Amino acid sequence: MPDDEEMVVTPWEVRGKMDYDRLIELFGTQRITPELKEKLYKMAGEEHIMLRRDLFFSHRDLDWILTEYEKGNKFIIYTGRGPSGHVHIGHLVPWIFTKWMQEKFGTRLYFQLTDDEKYFFTPDLSLDDVKRYTYENALDLLAIGFEPENTYVIQDIEHIDMMYELAVQVAKKVTFSTAKAVFGFENSMNIGGIWYPAMQAVPAFLHSWIYGTKTPCIIPCAIDQDPHWRVTRDVAERLGYYKPASIQNKFVPGLHEGGKMSASDPMSAIFTTDTPKQARKKVMAAYTGGRDTAEEQRKLGANPDICTVFMYYDFLFMPDDKELAEIERKCRGGEILCGECKQILAPRIMEFLEKHQAAREEVKDRVHEFSAARLREDIRR
Amino acid sequence: MPDDEEMVVTPWEVRGKMDYDRLIELFGTQRITPELKEKLYKMAGEEHIMLRRDLFFSHRDLDWILTEYEKGNKFIIYTGRGPSGHVHIGHLVPWIFTKWMQEKFGTRLYFQLTDDEKYFFTPDLSLDDVKRYTYENALDLLAIGFEPENTYVIQDIEHIDMMYELAVQVAKKVTFSTAKAVFGFENSMNIGGIWYPAMQAVPAFLHSWIYGTKTPCIIPCAIDQDPHWRVTRDVAERLGYYKPASIQNKFVPGLHEGGKMSASDPMSAIFTTDTPKQARKKVMAAYTGGRDTAEEQRKLGANPDICTVFMYYDFLFMPDDKELAEIERKCRGGEILCGECKQILAPRIMEFLEKHQAAREEVKDRVHEFSAARLREDIRR
Repeated sequence: MPDDEEMVVTPWEVRGKMDYDRLIELFGTQRITPELKEKLYKMAGEEHIMLRRDLFFSHRDLDWILTEYEKGNKFIIYTGRGPSGHVHIGHLVPWIFTKWMQEKFGTRLYFQLTDDEKYFFTPDLSLDDVKRYTYENALDLLAIGFEPENTYVIQDIEHIDMMYELAVQVAKKVTFSTAKAVFGFENSMNIGGIWYPAMQAVPAFLHSWIYGTKTPCIIPCAIDQDPHWRVTRDVAERLGYYKPASIQNKFVPGLHEGGKMSASDPMSAIFTTDTPKQARKKVMAAYTGGRDTAEEQRKLGANPDICTVFMYYDFLFMPDDKELAEIERKCRGGEILCGECKQILAPRIMEFLEKHQAAREEVKDRVHEFSAARLREDIRR
Repeated sequence: MPDDEEMVVTPWEVRGKMDYDRLIELFGTQRITPELKEKLYKMAGEEHIMLRRDLFFSHRDLDWILTEYEKGNKFIIYTGRGPSGHVHIGHLVPWIFTKWMQEKFGTRLYFQLTDDEKYFFTPDLSLDDVKRYTYENALDLLAIGFEPENTYVIQDIEHIDMMYELAVQVAKKVTFSTAKAVFGFENSMNIGGIWYPAMQAVPAFLHSWIYGTKTPCIIPCAIDQDPHWRVTRDVAERLGYYKPASIQNKFVPGLHEGGKMSASDPMSAIFTTDTPKQARKKVMAAYTGGRDTAEEQRKLGANPDICTVFMYYDFLFMPDDKELAEIERKCRGGEILCGECKQILAPRIMEFLEKHQAAREEVKDRVHEFSAARLREDIRR
């Protein structure tokens, strides 16, 4: 992709060359400082690769969330997924971090499957499609190993009875002008899509609403969702709730040049439903920072900065810093060719997939154990 | 009001001098012809004052609804109320007609209390206010004497679990451009208000959706709601349902000049919660077509065409055509003064109110018998 392509980051469109410093500036979020990382590590009792490697790089009020926790005011975690297709490995990455936070802080997770959103925003997606993906995506989430006692999976359409009364309160406070400015809506947007931001705000307040408390909330998510949290934060205090905090990750790349993924090109990402053999094939075809010929590469070295294989090492598949530094050194020095390097990643991904798919099978009969339907008993009427 | 004031008729604003012929033309509805009335009377087995006196004057597909009924394809009736305040006598008028239709055709009624709508569209109305009015308005509806077996009262927020899946399907098919053109929405409209038309479409399809049928639907309502039905009809066939028919009434006037009502002026309408004594006072203060002095009126006669007392006779309180003609003759001829005429209306309204209020008391413990919550058992999952 050309370096000068305009960067566009909205909840429904991410394109252009990513400049994360610029995004922090544009969105008005905060960088996660070394001091804040240390505070988080100290409280969690250990560090985490995705913070250490700056996959999670930006936040809103993370420091406040930790301070409240120290004071005994425990937060809830809220994140989600738009079920418009199968999940790929990149989608799992922030969920793995979410599980870590949930465990280390012993807090409740509300996970929103936004079936209504994806139905509104995807022209050819039917309700049946979206329901099927909702179920399939839930399996991927639960395969990560969340504990049912502290995990509540919300499906917007299925659980609307617990959400609508809060959503109407949010919606009354957001004008079309605001939604247009924040999300870039055009007049051709359907009225469901325009309504939808109210629904995405709800899980940030749901716990407080159900239990009559004022409970802090932190949202681990990709930074493209930040426009939603700006709206949610804007209405929060007027509704009597805390503004939700967030901890934001970079986009986890696909396998094509620039990390691009394409829904219509199955080779552009490794889906959790791929066979290990298919995954291997995709890794072997992945875009790298290699040279045109082996000879040239041995002489000039390759570029890990633009290599999708290296990105997968960085985020998840090479947690040992020394091993990673050694691969990088060999790559830049031309000591290793891309084919060899892919031979290291492929079995790691295959093993990950095999385990994930076994876990996916195992949760198939247990989806109801995680359902937010359990909250109905707790709702004040 | 000046005759040249521009006529504005939307579901949320009605002002200016009403020109019902022009409204039929503007909205593209059909006049109820004498032939169509005859057909309806024949099928119902009797005529009805509100058709005879042209309170119901306009329709869409009423002829088709009757033809389908003759073929054995029974319709359902759908109407509703926005619970933004107490009900006044004018609101009851189309409900009385609705009950007549329900009885004569033995059909099911879905009655929507649009609590979400009134919350979105009324800046200072709280959710608590709207819930209180929803309950109070339901009492007025049920006091009309609907039979619970065939009557399903929907409250949008309470029954959203039965409505959202249909509403998202409607919403996906309506753009902001369309909503702007049909309803006159500005960019300052909140995103709940923009979403709301999808909710008002739902009861037209709900029966068909729940029972997996394709059931005709007719909507008796004031003509200001027609923009909603244009949107509903526009999406109906694309969702696999019939376009809803409608039978539309004129606005039932208040007691001030031009039939104007004002939420902030309690004297402008007779509320069902007024004491008979208060009602009497309001009738005695009502705007009429009388002259400045009794002497002048005896000489020149008065004008029943602009008289709110006469309008109340016309719609409901003087069903005998001969009696009405005689009053009109005396009025125009100056044989009766406005005070005397009001003395005829006042006890009729007081008696009506006493009966209505007794019926209102009687249904207080029976509201649940009419609740659409009963439909949950019938919904295909």
